[in-house]
Amino acid sequence: MAGETVITVIGNLTGDPEMRATPSGSMVANFTIASTPRTFDRQTNEWKDGEAMFLRCSLWREQAENAVESLTKGMRVIAQGNLKMRSYDDKEGNRRTVTELEVDEIGPSLRFASAKVTRTNRSGGGNGGQNRPAPQQNQQSRPPANDPWSAGGGNTGGGWGNPDQSQAPF
Amino acid sequence: MAGETVITVIGNLTGDPEMRATPSGSMVANFTIASTPRTFDRQTNEWKDGEAMFLRCSLWREQAENAVESLTKGMRVIAQGNLKMRSYDDKEGNRRTVTELEVDEIGPSLRFASAKVTRTNRSGGGNGGQNRPAPQQNQQSRPPANDPWSAGGGNTGGGWGNPDQSQAPF
Amino acid sequence: MAGETVITVIGNLTGDPEMRATPSGSMVANFTIASTPRTFDRQTNEWKDGEAMFLRCSLWREQAENAVESLTKGMRVIAQGNLKMRSYDDKEGNRRTVTELEVDEIGPSLRFASAKVTRTNRSGGGNGGQNRPAPQQNQQSRPPANDPWSAGGGNTGGGWGNPDQSQAPF
Amino acid sequence: MAGETVITVIGNLTGDPEMRATPSGSMVANFTIASTPRTFDRQTNEWKDGEAMFLRCSLWREQAENAVESLTKGMRVIAQGNLKMRSYDDKEGNRRTVTELEVDEIGPSLRFASAKVTRTNRSGGGNGGQNRPAPQQNQQSRPPANDPWSAGGGNTGGGWGNPDQSQAPF
Repeated sequence: MAGETVITVIGNLTGDPEMRATPSGSMVANFTIASTPRTFDRQTNEWKDGEAMFLRCSLWREQAENAVESLTKGMRVIAQGNLKMRSYDDKEGNRRTVTELEVDEIGPSLRFASAKVTRTNRSGGGNGGQNRPAPQQNQQSRPPANDPWSAGGGNTGGGWGNPDQSQAPF
Repeated sequence: MAGETVITVIGNLTGDPEMRATPSGSMVANFTIASTPRTFDRQTNEWKDGEAMFLRCSLWREQAENAVESLTKGMRVIAQGNLKMRSYDDKEGNRRTVTELEVDEIGPSLRFASAKVTRTNRSGGGNGGQNRPAPQQNQQSRPPANDPWSAGGGNTGGGWGNPDQSQAPF
Repeated sequence: MAGETVITVIGNLTGDPEMRATPSGSMVANFTIASTPRTFDRQTNEWKDGEAMFLRCSLWREQAENAVESLTKGMRVIAQGNLKMRSYDDKEGNRRTVTELEVDEIGPSLRFASAKVTRTNRSGGGNGGQNRPAPQQNQQSRPPANDPWSAGGGNTGGGWGNPDQSQAPF
Repeated sequence: MAGETVITVIGNLTGDPEMRATPSGSMVANFTIASTPRTFDRQTNEWKDGEAMFLRCSLWREQAENAVESLTKGMRVIAQGNLKMRSYDDKEGNRRTVTELEVDEIGPSLRFASAKVTRTNRSGGGNGGQNRPAPQQNQQSRPPANDPWSAGGGNTGGGWGNPDQSQAPF
């Protein structure tokens, strides 16, 4: 994929993620992130909340399952994805447009929370179930993300823990 | 703050975060994120790893403590912050420049993992210990992040769970 | 301002920018950027256009005037700003939400074009007319952008052209 | 390409772009963008310059030629690209790392300037000379950007000016 509008959103979930299966069998989770900017008011010397932005999100496959297990209403998250617009006709026949975020990567924010992270091992492989059918719009463009973490499990030289890292620039 | 170069980095920690206190008593955690792009090779019809980028990161105050408790070597994270360059003279007197990320927000990625998230309640307040001394460079510009999640603790209508949300656009 | 959702959009103008004055006398330009992602189809070995995103934009003060002078329908631009949502009730009394980009900085793309750039000197100053009334939502938070370029006009050591730059890391 | 660290940088050129040909015949332009953040000092009620970041940039093919024609020392630009690190051994045999931006798209900022934009028509085509050899690292992953603007040349209904646009959501 190229020419996409990539954005990162930080905010709080307005509800628990809801998961469903597409007709082709892919899992997708939907949720809304509320992101509220703050302005410093020089008169009162205080920070004030601006108007919240509510961004509808979709998340696919293994990450959807991980999100449903991990995230609940109110939690603060950080998410990156592609901004998309989708048009449809409403009941009165008017053209409507919805703005959505197709999430590529998400995690719970550590600003106000700690997290106990557990490696998932879905569908028997480090590639996280990517042998399952992918949604039509993704299958040509999305690569499996590389995962040095998984490589470290059970062998001595794998992952970021290998001796090569001692030659990293830091 | 204005005019900063904000970036989002997704990658794996090359080691456990290391925490120390500054002379003024602020806690700061340091770690390096390795981010590896992938290229699709049309000849071989395969994805190949590109050259990794190793980005040195610093993280302050409550988030530093949460990161040290939550993140370990090899974990995949998503982080947003300001890209900075810092210059210094090395032992031979040559001018050197280091590129660093001053992290604003970080979380463990849910791509290959699930997370059990626990609200922290450091230094007695929803504002997460922000009454502690802040580092010099930040105190004029960084607001306390708003936290609707905390408002939900212990009462039935607080946070994003309140009835007003039923009027959200979704 | 803090906690805003900053995005960069690259695309083509669907029409000439239109400028108007707010009741308080500020100038604002409005236009729409159409951004079209492309997907590589491995079956046909070709790039295909995805669905375009149409993002409504607003741009304030001196930049609005510069944009109206410089940009026309069809031109490719690169713009950075804050993503905002605005709600209103339509004629039937239904709640509607519009997604907009409040542009912070914009320029014509050099991908398919060259540009003859001319320093503007509006309202008698390097700060580009920032003594004019600012829109309510901005006045507490937006700094005048620094402008080393302007410093070079009329004095010998100003701007990025000064000898100090020979000590820059590159 | 996937998993790249995309950033947008806004700042001033520290010198004129310099162009050269690679051994394979591709044109590449190099320049440095100086980006200076600003902090609001509540004590003095003034904005102060922070430490500048100097980011070395490379730009390829047609855009390189357009940049050399359009951009000069001191100009303010907005650029988006992939952040990269490159390692090398210096004369003393020490490992050094440079951070660079491989620019995808760049334009002169309209904050303090206006621009007279001229469509280029290099190497006989709307695709801007993309039949010339591409650098090795790009040829598998970068698509030709779509260009509705070019479609408008010489016919009355082309580009974004066609009647279909009247059905755009705005």
